[in-house]
Amino acid sequence: MAPVLEPFFKQVDSLSESFIDRLRKAVAIPSISAQDENRKDVFRMAQFLASELEALGAEVHQRPLGKQPGKEHLDLPPVVIARYGNDKNKRTILVYGHYDVQPALKEDGWATEPFELSIDSQGRMFGRGSTDDKGPVLGWLNVIQAHREAGVELPVNLLCCFEGMEEYGSEGLEEFIHSESKGFFKDADAVCISDNYWLGTEKPCLTYGLRGCNYYSISVSGPAQDLHSGVFGGSAHEPMTDLVNVLSKLVDAQGNILIPGIMDLVEPVTEEEKSLYTNISYTMDNLHESLGSETGIHPTKERTLMARWRFPSLSIHGIEGAYSAPGAKTVIPAKVIGKFSIRTVPNMESEDVNKLVFDHIKAEFAKLNSKNKLDVWLQHDGKWWVASPKHWNFSAASKAVKQVFGVEPDMTREGGSIPITLTFEQATGKNVLLLPMGSSTDAAHSINEKLDKRNYIEGIKLLGAYLHYVAEEPLPSS
Amino acid sequence: MAPVLEPFFKQVDSLSESFIDRLRKAVAIPSISAQDENRKDVFRMAQFLASELEALGAEVHQRPLGKQPGKEHLDLPPVVIARYGNDKNKRTILVYGHYDVQPALKEDGWATEPFELSIDSQGRMFGRGSTDDKGPVLGWLNVIQAHREAGVELPVNLLCCFEGMEEYGSEGLEEFIHSESKGFFKDADAVCISDNYWLGTEKPCLTYGLRGCNYYSISVSGPAQDLHSGVFGGSAHEPMTDLVNVLSKLVDAQGNILIPGIMDLVEPVTEEEKSLYTNISYTMDNLHESLGSETGIHPTKERTLMARWRFPSLSIHGIEGAYSAPGAKTVIPAKVIGKFSIRTVPNMESEDVNKLVFDHIKAEFAKLNSKNKLDVWLQHDGKWWVASPKHWNFSAASKAVKQVFGVEPDMTREGGSIPITLTFEQATGKNVLLLPMGSSTDAAHSINEKLDKRNYIEGIKLLGAYLHYVAEEPLPSS
Repeated sequence: MAPVLEPFFKQVDSLSESFIDRLRKAVAIPSISAQDENRKDVFRMAQFLASELEALGAEVHQRPLGKQPGKEHLDLPPVVIARYGNDKNKRTILVYGHYDVQPALKEDGWATEPFELSIDSQGRMFGRGSTDDKGPVLGWLNVIQAHREAGVELPVNLLCCFEGMEEYGSEGLEEFIHSESKGFFKDADAVCISDNYWLGTEKPCLTYGLRGCNYYSISVSGPAQDLHSGVFGGSAHEPMTDLVNVLSKLVDAQGNILIPGIMDLVEPVTEEEKSLYTNISYTMDNLHESLGSETGIHPTKERTLMARWRFPSLSIHGIEGAYSAPGAKTVIPAKVIGKFSIRTVPNMESEDVNKLVFDHIKAEFAKLNSKNKLDVWLQHDGKWWVASPKHWNFSAASKAVKQVFGVEPDMTREGGSIPITLTFEQATGKNVLLLPMGSSTDAAHSINEKLDKRNYIEGIKLLGAYLHYVAEEPLPSS
Repeated sequence: MAPVLEPFFKQVDSLSESFIDRLRKAVAIPSISAQDENRKDVFRMAQFLASELEALGAEVHQRPLGKQPGKEHLDLPPVVIARYGNDKNKRTILVYGHYDVQPALKEDGWATEPFELSIDSQGRMFGRGSTDDKGPVLGWLNVIQAHREAGVELPVNLLCCFEGMEEYGSEGLEEFIHSESKGFFKDADAVCISDNYWLGTEKPCLTYGLRGCNYYSISVSGPAQDLHSGVFGGSAHEPMTDLVNVLSKLVDAQGNILIPGIMDLVEPVTEEEKSLYTNISYTMDNLHESLGSETGIHPTKERTLMARWRFPSLSIHGIEGAYSAPGAKTVIPAKVIGKFSIRTVPNMESEDVNKLVFDHIKAEFAKLNSKNKLDVWLQHDGKWWVASPKHWNFSAASKAVKQVFGVEPDMTREGGSIPITLTFEQATGKNVLLLPMGSSTDAAHSINEKLDKRNYIEGIKLLGAYLHYVAEEPLPSS
């Protein structure tokens, strides 16, 4: 049966100005995790969150993570963890967000001061961190406040995990989550992360999959030092010639990966899965708009979305050691390192992919009969993640979208990685849902980052409604 | 008949300490043309040369070249031109050199102060500019002085052209030479340039050819801005994929140029030419030593030298716009520019080469069926130069080598370019000879640049003897 949400929704509307004010205060704290000089602001932001949560009646801890590896003069910002409600008869939802932000300078091209929330006539709230991820984090606090002031009981126990290093590699968080999965987070029945974006601007989505990423380097070296191409050109094997040749054997212009065996690792597309893509609100115009060009490979939205979400891709990122400045230099570089990565999907296991990649590259290099030396290695990998969108966690979120926005959400995957998603799944063993608040035009990480007032206020309703539908979901039969 | 050189040679030996002292004074002036703050030193060096030449009885002018293009707060250093002798019955030899030097800092790794001439127990005279090109320039002055003090008449009229911007693109010189070819230089019967190096360390050489260079850029562009490879990988044509593919179609790992028609432009090797290479003092060990590796392409010295001197080569220098730093970045670059150059040889005309290059690259790109945009253009070109080594200018130099060093010189070409060589040939219409003083180990442009005392003192004898043999050469029959 559908929960009664009207009093909560009304309370959100009547508190909307104070919720915006809470976001204004948060944006005003330049909690940039990548810049040493702002570390104190990251701590200040942790304290702000902890104080607000305490004022709302939550049990709050700021958990230290020690010194920052490689920058031991800096303390890592704390993980702010909180519990609201401790009723054994309720489900417990663990929510994650981050309170640090990307760097921002007015001079970068911002139309407004990046650390002052500026609202324009269209209700766009500009400010660094507005959508990534202070708006969504405060969304959970606002949900608690609206329930308290409406006199409506929160239908679940809420656990919060808010970190301050997300924009700088989530230093220390993975170990923390693993250790707290048997501690502070042990009651969690499911996880909800609000740190991504709608596919477009009008329709909310629930995200159930992410691609992984295996990042490789190929080095080719020959002479002991860079050579003058006039003096030596034609007489020595050139590492750049060999590297370009090998790189050209990785992927074709249509995006097909040329490494034998790679595509055999990919889970076949089922008929049922195909139908998922047809219903998604997305057009080729949306693609062209985000590319800023009409250089898409595939003719249809279905094939385009599959290429981004559920098929692997291979991108060549660049070459280290070669001449990369403007102008002309007649150098033969002595050692060059090509960088490329493969976005991975089910059921590609990293070690299998590595073996195919290494074997192929070595075989292609051997064909060249070059006396240069080639080496290839994995720089880093991160696994893909796919959750079951039929889990009650998703069903609840889907009903909440329908209730708040009047539409069925798009069921999406994403091409990129949010590594902490997989960490939560593996550490807790529970279903993880990505439930975004912001839209595709929010410009996270860019200048003029914003969150639309509608996305914020209706998003608060969405997060609250989701908790109510979670409480209503039947226990799984198994 | 052989000229009488003994009194001149003896005078050179007895003046050797003062010649070294002259070099010491010149090295002490840091006439670095590339650094604004040293421009006054470049002018000081011009004045030093002019004063020394005047003291030797030459007619000297310091010709201004105006403001430096793009750096109008700087005056270009003057061309120091001089005439010694004006006898209509003598041949007139125009000699070129440069009095500016490359930058040098002790901190770069010099074992001694770069602007203090330091002579070690093996007679190596270390100092910036010692071999490039102050030693050779002063060589001509020393020749005049030794003749005067020995009471031997200089057997030719000598014209000097010493510039101060060679290490920074010879700004303004080309126009100057063209205009003076009908003026101050109009009597020149031949040109001699001492600004390159022996092939090894023991045997002098005469250089009769240089390769040209056509430098190209290929740009491939697609999206309006860089893309995240997670979000877009697989859905859009990637400029880097296309560029790498096209670059891989230019040259193979064995150095063979893959552009159809290019090799048809190359003058065939004659049997007579082949025999020239057999006699040259060079071994595969010499190649391996200079490469610092055994990554040479060809099995024999003959084929190696031909590859460097008389066949074209193609080198890929790098890519602008792609990720070139250490580490990992998952970017899809929006626009990348590949740089490559072709070293050209007789009879490759630049326009013919350009057409073949452009046609091939466009055809290869068309095969990719990519929606990206490709552009290819010539950044700059410089023509190859080959003189006749049978000209009296070379015969005279060859006899001088035999006289001073007791061996036949290696007849060499070089793979790189010295563009001013061709300018002198074209402007004067006369034969140009490259007659180096320094050896292959002199480290011009590098740290610990040096000139061996033997190369300097015997080199002065060589330059003087060359002038005597020039005077003895019969007039051409035609």
